[in-house]
Amino acid sequence: MSIAYLNGEYLPLADAHVSVLDRGFLFAEGIYEVAAVIDGRLVDSASHLARLERSASAIGLSLPIGLAAVEAVQKQLIARNGLNEGLVYLQLTGGVDAARDFLPAPDLAPTLVLFVADKPFVDSPAARTGIAVATMPDLRWARRDIKSTGLLAQAMAKRAAADAGCQEAWMVEDGFVTEGASSTAFIVTDEGIVTRPYSQAVLAGCTGAALGILATEDGIPLVRRTFTVAEALGAKEAFITSASTLCQSVVRIDDHRIGDGTPGPVATRLRALYIDFARRTAV
Amino acid sequence: MSIAYLNGEYLPLADAHVSVLDRGFLFAEGIYEVAAVIDGRLVDSASHLARLERSASAIGLSLPIGLAAVEAVQKQLIARNGLNEGLVYLQLTGGVDAARDFLPAPDLAPTLVLFVADKPFVDSPAARTGIAVATMPDLRWARRDIKSTGLLAQAMAKRAAADAGCQEAWMVEDGFVTEGASSTAFIVTDEGIVTRPYSQAVLAGCTGAALGILATEDGIPLVRRTFTVAEALGAKEAFITSASTLCQSVVRIDDHRIGDGTPGPVATRLRALYIDFARRTAV
Repeated sequence: MSIAYLNGEYLPLADAHVSVLDRGFLFAEGIYEVAAVIDGRLVDSASHLARLERSASAIGLSLPIGLAAVEAVQKQLIARNGLNEGLVYLQLTGGVDAARDFLPAPDLAPTLVLFVADKPFVDSPAARTGIAVATMPDLRWARRDIKSTGLLAQAMAKRAAADAGCQEAWMVEDGFVTEGASSTAFIVTDEGIVTRPYSQAVLAGCTGAALGILATEDGIPLVRRTFTVAEALGAKEAFITSASTLCQSVVRIDDHRIGDGTPGPVATRLRALYIDFARRTAV
Repeated sequence: MSIAYLNGEYLPLADAHVSVLDRGFLFAEGIYEVAAVIDGRLVDSASHLARLERSASAIGLSLPIGLAAVEAVQKQLIARNGLNEGLVYLQLTGGVDAARDFLPAPDLAPTLVLFVADKPFVDSPAARTGIAVATMPDLRWARRDIKSTGLLAQAMAKRAAADAGCQEAWMVEDGFVTEGASSTAFIVTDEGIVTRPYSQAVLAGCTGAALGILATEDGIPLVRRTFTVAEALGAKEAFITSASTLCQSVVRIDDHRIGDGTPGPVATRLRALYIDFARRTAV
């Protein structure tokens, strides 16, 4: 049985319950982070912790414990669960009020929950074959820079993508790709690797940010600009980045094969660089 | 102690807990309904139950019990809690999966929870004085016709409105008022009462729909069209409708007094008509 953390206590995940009055349950007043674990250590931890604090602050929540204490809980969970490779999930919500009211009582104690998932992703089959992506209208709210738990649009897009035989959805707004439902979207063109600039329209991906630096250091130019679906369909390669997929080639978008339909050299190279970076810098 | 209903069981609200793996908690994969109770009976119940079914179906969920059984649970909660005036809240979510995955396991049992709030609203002070409204950018997702629990944008807008000394937020998109954060927005002009047409941009308000019929029957024309903030500021009256406020005059929008700053005759008349309708038809 997996061990979770809930508001200061370690307990079996199956016993981790929250009140139905939790503002995360009633109003999706919550934010989350997903940290990858490789070799029993946290990947790119400082970057994820910084984003955690940004997301919390953006919706008016404060972490009940400092970032160093959060990382200590993450490490405890890795140790207690004997996790070698997988994910540590964290969610912070507005906490449990006495009644359902849009306006919370003052000084409500937030809910902080963390749990792990055992998931081998370094040697994943999808990394060898690449994945297929389905394009979907981007129905999400205007503050996608906040990693909020309001994920219904993403869940619906993922389901529709799965129904179409795809492993991820790319969200499209005004003809331009914003990002994946749970990943950052990249294409490879003659310019180098292309991904959407930071704005409120997309989440600032931690994995994508690190990968951009690795690419640049490796002589692969990184261009931050919007790109259309048509451009993506004609790209030399396409790939996604996220904590749980690292860097994965996209070999099909809707009904169009990308490149020769197998993982291309740039994405393959960047995946290797990222895994090397992750192992070198994990804490 | 208030008695709630959770997945077939009646229990104290304080004991009504869900797993942190509930998809309502993790992904805001949930929808809700709020039914008003007057004289211990459900107001406009058929309309709320029909919308409940529409919302559930729109996000791919099925109610675990039929609509008649839902209404029976609502009545049980009214009886068990001795509720005379207040609200019955209902939330349906995707249920508890074995792990956090955007794609749910097949045939997951949904979570259905109901609880009540004792809240006298027929003789509310706000009905006598009217309320103040703050306009806010409408940051919500594109499917506002679904009564989903993804309410973070609304909660943030309500908080910002409260900080500005207002009791409700009116959401504004492209210069036009869409609706209140938890209500339908109306203005009164020479044409009659004006409210935004049904579309994916707004929730089809049950109270507003009933009130529109009552207005028409009373010789007050109902015009469904978009209106701007400027038009609202210059309107003869403004008001909101919702299950928990019924019909309430808006006497101030941002820094602008509406009419003479007290509840106007049209909203006052419509509130009386709605309360009469509610008492006559409650079940």
